[in-house]
Amino acid sequence: MLVHQRDRILGAVDTSLAIKAIESSFCDYSSGNVQSGAVAHLRFKAPPGDFHVKSAHIGSSPYFVVKMAGSFYKNPERGLASSNGVMMAFDAQTGHTICLLADDGALTDLRTALAGTVAARLVAPARARTLGIVGAGTQAKLHAIWVSHHLGIENVQIWSRQPARAQQLAEDLRDHPFSVTVQTDLSLLSRACDVIVTTTPSQTPLITRDMIRPGLRIVAIGADSPGKTEVAVDVMAAADLILTDSTAQCLAYGECAALDTSAGTRTPPIIEIGEVLLGHREIHLPEDAIAIADLTGLGAQDAAIAELAIKGLSAL
Amino acid sequence: MLVHQRDRILGAVDTSLAIKAIESSFCDYSSGNVQSGAVAHLRFKAPPGDFHVKSAHIGSSPYFVVKMAGSFYKNPERGLASSNGVMMAFDAQTGHTICLLADDGALTDLRTALAGTVAARLVAPARARTLGIVGAGTQAKLHAIWVSHHLGIENVQIWSRQPARAQQLAEDLRDHPFSVTVQTDLSLLSRACDVIVTTTPSQTPLITRDMIRPGLRIVAIGADSPGKTEVAVDVMAAADLILTDSTAQCLAYGECAALDTSAGTRTPPIIEIGEVLLGHREIHLPEDAIAIADLTGLGAQDAAIAELAIKGLSAL
Repeated sequence: MLVHQRDRILGAVDTSLAIKAIESSFCDYSSGNVQSGAVAHLRFKAPPGDFHVKSAHIGSSPYFVVKMAGSFYKNPERGLASSNGVMMAFDAQTGHTICLLADDGALTDLRTALAGTVAARLVAPARARTLGIVGAGTQAKLHAIWVSHHLGIENVQIWSRQPARAQQLAEDLRDHPFSVTVQTDLSLLSRACDVIVTTTPSQTPLITRDMIRPGLRIVAIGADSPGKTEVAVDVMAAADLILTDSTAQCLAYGECAALDTSAGTRTPPIIEIGEVLLGHREIHLPEDAIAIADLTGLGAQDAAIAELAIKGLSAL
Repeated sequence: MLVHQRDRILGAVDTSLAIKAIESSFCDYSSGNVQSGAVAHLRFKAPPGDFHVKSAHIGSSPYFVVKMAGSFYKNPERGLASSNGVMMAFDAQTGHTICLLADDGALTDLRTALAGTVAARLVAPARARTLGIVGAGTQAKLHAIWVSHHLGIENVQIWSRQPARAQQLAEDLRDHPFSVTVQTDLSLLSRACDVIVTTTPSQTPLITRDMIRPGLRIVAIGADSPGKTEVAVDVMAAADLILTDSTAQCLAYGECAALDTSAGTRTPPIIEIGEVLLGHREIHLPEDAIAIADLTGLGAQDAAIAELAIKGLSAL
């Protein structure tokens, strides 16, 4: 059994190819070119943790991939990383194992941040200068870096329920080519920022009705299993456009799950990012439009980043 | 990353404890003491293959387990095993990896045969002497061995669509303490055998209406994903009792899936094996009763056998 470790895996991934691979995975998913297994959600109470298992085979890829990853929120108190995970790649011709990517969740972290970046490029206004980051964990950091790079962000504002963690993240981001501010008032952040990325495991909404304003643009990545939510349902319902990675998943357990979609109720248009990237659907966002991207994570993204890693590893 | 290989794993499993562990897993499942993730089914067309991902956490176990296993039916033509699989064990307190059980599917094979044996003990008549085995693959062999041992079987009859494979299996079983006969006529086998185990990946029924007779007893283990079936719906409907590993799974994609369960239709009583083992339900099978066990496989069985293996490995 071939086992690759985190550092070697990350060294083998060409990140300029990775964002293209993630874009392609959105398109493959929305065009029905992906076979996805049902997503398993395991939830642990004491200590609290979430765990997901996703599986996918993209089109004619030589591999299919099972991704196992989760977050146990008390781990840092024990000196352990909260997030963790591995991916197992199998031969799509024989079902035999190809290798274990013992990446400690790093590939999931990367593909999640890249997916959020793809989404941010679609929902952000032209010439976005300020990025709001809600949360102070791994995804907060990675989104600050990747979204800022791809949108040319000048100032990142960070809010966390735990201000000390926001402060720490601000320090960790010191060497990046943007300024960083810690915001202690989330409504100030939501007013000041051109685009906001929410990255927490919250089970109660953080972006609330009072923060609704013309031009509000949000990428919400935290709600990826039943019970999680970061954006109040009034805010979702007030959107002029909702983008999803998978409309089926988002309606089942993303931010969209809270929407009343019964007949006769007005809901915002909901469009998959893959449909937009493929050119099958066009989106127009006037300056004052409210747009929200709801991301739940796709097995296809795991399969895409794993295939890229395996190709890179075999070329080392 | 700790990786254990097949032979070492199998050497660490105490099989007398294993059947008890599988019995317990039936009970845990039926008493709601198991958290099971949604089962992922991936199906491949060219070459044909099935792949499953199951995940479960039993009660207060220190581990939870993700099992990935499948069968690619043309593999033997390439000199490869048709079945394959691995299990990944995680710490239920932190979500971090414990180890990879690179068992090549052997633990799945074992737990499946032990589950079939538990089911056979419940559906077989008293003093069963002849066992019919439908199919000639790994599960055919393991069920011949395990069911014969636990029921005191004297004669095993084997039928396969490919008679040469039945002949080969008969030879492979030569050193076991029962006689082995190859049957070329499945209806003769079904008439002659006290209990029948069906072990094929068939997508069309093998046990058909004309084989219905008083006292027919079947353990059907092949139908474990949508589209597979070995027992005709008339035979299922004619049963006096159906036992399942998971009634929800069996109704979704086991042999029970074909039953018409709409209101007003007479269906046989369907009882979970765990309910019987727990003593919550009693079953009485008169000599001429028809009884069928429908097994789809439980993540709880994977978790139970994996925990036993891990304990055995740590004691080596």
